[in-house]
Amino acid sequence: MIPEGIQFAERFDGVSGSAIREIFKVLGKPGMISFAGGNPSLAALPDEICADIARDVIKADGKRILQYGATEGYPPFVESLSAYIQQQYGFDLELNGVLPTTGSTSCMDLMLKAFINPGDAVLVESPTFLGNMQTLNLYQAKLIPVESDEGGVMLDKLEEAIKEHHPKLFYVIPSFQNPSGRTLAADRRKPIAELAAKYGFIVMEDDPYRDLRYTGDHLPTIKSYDTTGHVAYMGSFSKIISPGMRVGFLVAQKDILRKCTIGKQGTDLHTPNLNQAIVDQFLRRGLLAPHIESIIPAYREKMELMLEELKSFPEGTRYFVPEGGLFIWVEMPEGFNATELFQAAVDAGVAYVPGTHFYPYGGHHNTLRLNFSNSTPEQIREGMAKLRKLFTENIG
Amino acid sequence: MIPEGIQFAERFDGVSGSAIREIFKVLGKPGMISFAGGNPSLAALPDEICADIARDVIKADGKRILQYGATEGYPPFVESLSAYIQQQYGFDLELNGVLPTTGSTSCMDLMLKAFINPGDAVLVESPTFLGNMQTLNLYQAKLIPVESDEGGVMLDKLEEAIKEHHPKLFYVIPSFQNPSGRTLAADRRKPIAELAAKYGFIVMEDDPYRDLRYTGDHLPTIKSYDTTGHVAYMGSFSKIISPGMRVGFLVAQKDILRKCTIGKQGTDLHTPNLNQAIVDQFLRRGLLAPHIESIIPAYREKMELMLEELKSFPEGTRYFVPEGGLFIWVEMPEGFNATELFQAAVDAGVAYVPGTHFYPYGGHHNTLRLNFSNSTPEQIREGMAKLRKLFTENIG
Repeated sequence: MIPEGIQFAERFDGVSGSAIREIFKVLGKPGMISFAGGNPSLAALPDEICADIARDVIKADGKRILQYGATEGYPPFVESLSAYIQQQYGFDLELNGVLPTTGSTSCMDLMLKAFINPGDAVLVESPTFLGNMQTLNLYQAKLIPVESDEGGVMLDKLEEAIKEHHPKLFYVIPSFQNPSGRTLAADRRKPIAELAAKYGFIVMEDDPYRDLRYTGDHLPTIKSYDTTGHVAYMGSFSKIISPGMRVGFLVAQKDILRKCTIGKQGTDLHTPNLNQAIVDQFLRRGLLAPHIESIIPAYREKMELMLEELKSFPEGTRYFVPEGGLFIWVEMPEGFNATELFQAAVDAGVAYVPGTHFYPYGGHHNTLRLNFSNSTPEQIREGMAKLRKLFTENIG
Repeated sequence: MIPEGIQFAERFDGVSGSAIREIFKVLGKPGMISFAGGNPSLAALPDEICADIARDVIKADGKRILQYGATEGYPPFVESLSAYIQQQYGFDLELNGVLPTTGSTSCMDLMLKAFINPGDAVLVESPTFLGNMQTLNLYQAKLIPVESDEGGVMLDKLEEAIKEHHPKLFYVIPSFQNPSGRTLAADRRKPIAELAAKYGFIVMEDDPYRDLRYTGDHLPTIKSYDTTGHVAYMGSFSKIISPGMRVGFLVAQKDILRKCTIGKQGTDLHTPNLNQAIVDQFLRRGLLAPHIESIIPAYREKMELMLEELKSFPEGTRYFVPEGGLFIWVEMPEGFNATELFQAAVDAGVAYVPGTHFYPYGGHHNTLRLNFSNSTPEQIREGMAKLRKLFTENIG
């Protein structure tokens, strides 16, 4: 019951909250095996080292850390982050600036704040990350899905959509995409940067899974081909250090970054200094690369185990074999309804995310997303057996 | 130079960044005495204890702290915060919910996201906090200033403005207001809650300075008179623990809070768990009240010293004597221009914020805001002597 005489803003029309965040709430049942969510494994969270670092940084620079900081970021972190970005990605830091953000969720919010008027067209992959689709809806963007194949978004479909809709932005997750697990093909990356410069729109390259590669080689980012400022890169430490820390970063052309910084003054004034200082120490002490190396084998093993389990799923089950990331995308035969089956799965003690939530305009009820990172091998075996049974009973 | 073919969103038309954040940048000069900003004193920042707490909480609950959290908040903190709010404020937690936020800056952003369509009328005190005026402008609200006297906003002027403009919100800082230092009179508080219920708008009660009272007794909040859900209360730990930690909270009627929570999913997903866990320990260990008690004497002394210094300012200087907070508001005679003099003051080694920035439509160049909390007594004496000299030379 809303207080009398009060009306919410129009941006909430039709927005009812992230399906995943709601699904999280049913996962509290003891014994529930969750292939929903996109959580890192608890074993991969470096709590011991963070405890010491947190104390160390406050002991060393506590007055500055506890005082108001600059919206532009905690200076030592801006320094180490810039060096890291230079070294890892080779981005042109004459053309671009770097802004620490409160998770990469916040990059999305700030970029949409900077660019989107209600009704503006934004191209998205189909399927795409549901959380950021909700953010797009809150900015009242007009979402235009662009078809993908196994190599990610299809260039001819992309150019068609650009010509038809004159988009402000194209939102793309190039590595081990959420939810599809697909990686954007190497030879599609430069052309995307070129299309953005040619037609005058911004590519938002959201790349939180990049370092979780279990096979094959790193591909150049779309941003690395950007010479005109038309590509913005959203990075995150959520999957490689800690999501609860909420530290991400935005690399964008300097005038764009300035707009985002002004927007950030009103969003949270600045990202908490302590959190920036902790990630700063991971970079300065050279802890990040060995930490990533240490978590990859278990993730790879879990992914392979889940893929192995999928082999004995009922005939007609199709799934994508990713080279990294956290998700396996499953397509059941037409007519199968993973959305309707969700409650039965939860009742049986296993959860996933129905694929329909990842499509701007719904449908695709035969699809689902499975997360393997946040379960033990035993849970993966047991949960997949439950799903296999349920799906076998409900197929065809 | 903006990338070719790109246009920023209309919400940025006329918004050029917070004047205070820009002023901060000129304060880096060695030896600069700053009466600008609203920073707590460095001595008041509990760095030693935060260093230990930060380590302790990660040692005790590190896996949960480093993992994704709920948008609704870190559960132990939601519990201790609710108990604290109950005990300190007596708010009705059947009618209302509590949401931890990334600083109270974020409360403002989330409430405006929930309620404001472009062009909606929002009543504000005149003068009022410039940071939140910028946030209002980014939501394309129509700002309606309401006249105040020494007892804060005038009820007859408020009701007149309500009838004329049918506002969505009224934004008010009731304790030691920023920038005026004024406290909303006790007998105006219940009527404001009643006006909101009668006319159907939301009161946003922004109360970050409440605990920094140096004389007199605490007054009941406006929210404490709210029986219909028309008052939202924005609280902050920035001034009483640490602003760099970015922990605030929003108390609002449950359906309103739900909307803000959905909005927060897209802003930062959740406030970092570590920061919530640290404040949680201040509450659980009973550290907050003694910490506040320990910082008040030095703040009171600085305020009294600055007031004493003002006595010998040139004839025609008027200033408000606050009962707490961080600011003293100064009105020079008509014709005096504190905006133009700002650069000369900086050149002389002392900074303030020209009062014009606190008015929705500018003007009032004879006013300025002085902060006393972030300077030593010696700096206050020296800086005020510089200002006295400069103002004497430039008066009349």
